[in-house]
Amino acid sequence: MIMDCAQVAIKTAGLIIIGNEILSGKIQDQNSFFLAAELRALGISLMRISVIPDDLDMISSEVPAFSSAYDFVFTSGGVGPTHDDVTMAGVAKAFCVELVRHPLLERKFVERYGKTANAAILKMAEVPAGAEVIEFTTNNFPLVVFKNIYIFPGIPRYLREKFMLIRERFRTSEFYLKRIYLRANESDIAAILNAVVEKNNCVDFGSYPILDHQDYQIILTVESKMEADLGRALDELIKQIPKEMLVRIE
Amino acid sequence: MIMDCAQVAIKTAGLIIIGNEILSGKIQDQNSFFLAAELRALGISLMRISVIPDDLDMISSEVPAFSSAYDFVFTSGGVGPTHDDVTMAGVAKAFCVELVRHPLLERKFVERYGKTANAAILKMAEVPAGAEVIEFTTNNFPLVVFKNIYIFPGIPRYLREKFMLIRERFRTSEFYLKRIYLRANESDIAAILNAVVEKNNCVDFGSYPILDHQDYQIILTVESKMEADLGRALDELIKQIPKEMLVRIE
Repeated sequence: MIMDCAQVAIKTAGLIIIGNEILSGKIQDQNSFFLAAELRALGISLMRISVIPDDLDMISSEVPAFSSAYDFVFTSGGVGPTHDDVTMAGVAKAFCVELVRHPLLERKFVERYGKTANAAILKMAEVPAGAEVIEFTTNNFPLVVFKNIYIFPGIPRYLREKFMLIRERFRTSEFYLKRIYLRANESDIAAILNAVVEKNNCVDFGSYPILDHQDYQIILTVESKMEADLGRALDELIKQIPKEMLVRIE
Repeated sequence: MIMDCAQVAIKTAGLIIIGNEILSGKIQDQNSFFLAAELRALGISLMRISVIPDDLDMISSEVPAFSSAYDFVFTSGGVGPTHDDVTMAGVAKAFCVELVRHPLLERKFVERYGKTANAAILKMAEVPAGAEVIEFTTNNFPLVVFKNIYIFPGIPRYLREKFMLIRERFRTSEFYLKRIYLRANESDIAAILNAVVEKNNCVDFGSYPILDHQDYQIILTVESKMEADLGRALDELIKQIPKEMLVRIE
C-alpha cells in the first residue's frame, strides 16, 4: 500500500513472469500487458514487473521480496508437469515450507485422468504447504494463492480465464484519467507541463510522443484517484497550452 | 558472464524497461521482445527484465544491481525532455557522478533546433559524467553508454534503429536450437523428457503447450552453444518419443 499526497491509500501489486521462453525471445509475453491493464482498471497500482528464468533459486529470492513490498503478487508460468516447472517449489522454498500434494487437487486429477494420472500429472497437484486452491476446473491448471501471492499458469488464455474469475476481489477506488492530444513537440510544451506538474503533486502526469499520426504528435495523460484534483490540474494545463496545439481531450 | 557445464563462457544481459505507461497498462512494451530476440540471435543470454516506474530512486537502485550482475545492461525509456524523464539522472545518482551537459550533444541540439533549443531540449544533452555518446543523428535522441549500461530511448522504432547500429559489437558464439513438434500432452512426455534432461546438463530443454493448433499440441525446444551436445541430446530424445506423437523437427 502506498499513500498518495492526499493520504488516499493505494493498493499495490507486483508481477513476476517466469519463463525462459520469454527471456530467450521465443515468445512475446502477453500476460504483463493484460494484467497491467486489468489492475489499473481495478484501481491497483502496479509497481514492478520482473521477468525471470525457470530457476528455483531466482524464483525463491524474487517472490518474498515482492510479497513483502506489495499488497498483491501475481506470478505467471512454471506450473506444468515438466522439469522446468518449478514455481510451486520456488515459492515453497522461499517461505521454508514443504511442497505438498493438495488432497483436493490430487483427487480431481485422478478423477480427470484416471489411469493416465502419472507422476507428471500429480506434480501439478503439489502446492506450498498452507496454500489455498481457489479454483481448478476452468482449464488444466489450478489457481493457487499462498499468502498474498497468486500463482497463475503462463498460457495467456488460461491466465485470463483464471484472472476473470477473481478480478472483483481486487477492485478498489478507480483512477480518473484524461488524455490530451497535442499537435506539438514535447520540447514545446515541456516548460508548461513541468510548471503544472510541480504545483499538482496529487496528480500523475505523463507525456508520450506519438510517431506517424497525422493529427497529433503527443499524448499527455493526467491521472488521479481524486476526481477534483484531476479536474483542477487539467484546467490549469489546458489554460496554458497554446490553442493551436490542442487537438482534443478524452 | 556465466559458465555452462562445458565451461563455455556465456555473456549475459539484463533489460530495464523504464516507464509508468507500461506499468499502468496504457502501452504494451515492445522493446523487451525485440531485444530478447536480438540478444538471443547474437548469442547473449538475457537473464532478467525489470519494468520499473519513471522514478529516480528506483532507477538508481536497479541500474547498479544489473550493472554488476550482467555483462551488458540495456535501459529503455525516460530520456526525453519532460519531468518524467529521469533515466540519466537515475544512472548518475546510482554511481555518484554529476549529470553534465555533454558538449557535443549541446552543440548538435543547438545546431538542430536553433533558437528553439530551450531548457527542455538541452535537458536531453545531459548525461552522467563519464558517459560516452555513441550516436546522436539517427533520430531525436542520443544513444549513450555509461560503464556497461546502454541507454536507449523508449519509443520502439527509435530503440530498434539505435540497436541495429551497434548490434554487432555484442555478437558471440551462437545458440544452436532445435524444435520438436508433438501430437501429445505434456504429461505424456514429461517422464521421457525429464530423464533426458537429467542426462544432458550441457543442454537446455523447454516444453511449451500450444493451444488450438490442429497438427501439434507441444513444442519441445533443445538448445546449446555446443552443436555436438545438442545433436546427442536430440537423438536421445527422438529415440524415446513414440513415433505416433512426432509431427516434425525443425
